[in-house]
Amino acid sequence: MQQQDPVKRLMEQLSQLPGIGERTSLRLVLHMLSSARESMYTLAQTLTEVADRVKECMTCAMLTTEENGCSICSSLSRDRTILCVVASIQDLMAIETTAEFRGVYHVLHGTLAPMDGIGPQDLRIPSLLTRLSNKAEAVREIILATPPTVEGEATALYLAEQMKGFGIPISRIASGVPVGGDLQYADRLTLSRSMQLRRGF
Amino acid sequence: MQQQDPVKRLMEQLSQLPGIGERTSLRLVLHMLSSARESMYTLAQTLTEVADRVKECMTCAMLTTEENGCSICSSLSRDRTILCVVASIQDLMAIETTAEFRGVYHVLHGTLAPMDGIGPQDLRIPSLLTRLSNKAEAVREIILATPPTVEGEATALYLAEQMKGFGIPISRIASGVPVGGDLQYADRLTLSRSMQLRRGF
Repeated sequence: MQQQDPVKRLMEQLSQLPGIGERTSLRLVLHMLSSARESMYTLAQTLTEVADRVKECMTCAMLTTEENGCSICSSLSRDRTILCVVASIQDLMAIETTAEFRGVYHVLHGTLAPMDGIGPQDLRIPSLLTRLSNKAEAVREIILATPPTVEGEATALYLAEQMKGFGIPISRIASGVPVGGDLQYADRLTLSRSMQLRRGF
Repeated sequence: MQQQDPVKRLMEQLSQLPGIGERTSLRLVLHMLSSARESMYTLAQTLTEVADRVKECMTCAMLTTEENGCSICSSLSRDRTILCVVASIQDLMAIETTAEFRGVYHVLHGTLAPMDGIGPQDLRIPSLLTRLSNKAEAVREIILATPPTVEGEATALYLAEQMKGFGIPISRIASGVPVGGDLQYADRLTLSRSMQLRRGF
């Protein structure tokens, strides 16, 4: 099984990663070989460290190296009564860059996609419901920030249904023409949504 | 210096690679973390092995793990009397995929670029000239396969000049409209080159 040539093996392993084809992996390997070897050893070390230490936060399913919850969940400056549900870590990080939201998160690690066989049990939905039923947490508002796609909307609807019993106010992030965007270039669905969801001035 | 969070460190190190930005490196790390950890350890291992074992062939400057020359230089089925000079390992591999050329190579690892401070000493030109002056090698034909770009042509011209004294026939790869290509879409330079270099029918 094991190919003799380590360069070919490295190229094959890199090609397994998303967006990296055969040509790109060759370019990456040649670049690494033409730079200082030190950086290859460092990369190998960091990879091992990440594989060893990084796991999901037991509360919100964000990535962390801490045993007692991630930096957001264990931060004293975050408001634990507002919970924002996101589909992915990328989405969480995007919201964090706004520096507007001071609550805590729950990462689903995907959206419902029954056609692809992804049901509630495949996401972090059970742990979300357990978290909400835990009285000690005392969440007072839930923001559903799954993406405004078919799957994201379906996931938000499903969650809203499941969480009705908790009697906690639930909201959905706004969707419409992006700020600074041009109406004539907005797609029809976005534009009609933005008309439907118009606010009083 | 060392950042606490290994995920951030891994992202930073991946972003150093060509064509990988912040967003891509995040996607790569998240993909690796959501796959089997085993593959991260394997990748780290292969990286270390490549960094440990891969070096330049002492004859042709191709990458190899062998002490006594690369697989092409040490192959008994290759014709050592025909030498093809290429700018990069990618170019060598491209020629190898044609399976037409049965000679040996010399990899320059770049092209001359005086404006960027890349002179003959920065490429594998000294080792090429030493190789040719070595009578034991007895090269009978040299093919200059540097790319048909400004730098590639300049490098070929420079090499031809330097190698004149050896009395070995020197040729340059053909450049013109690509096979299967459309004349109307060929750029002007390529088209006029292909007219100038026309052959008797």
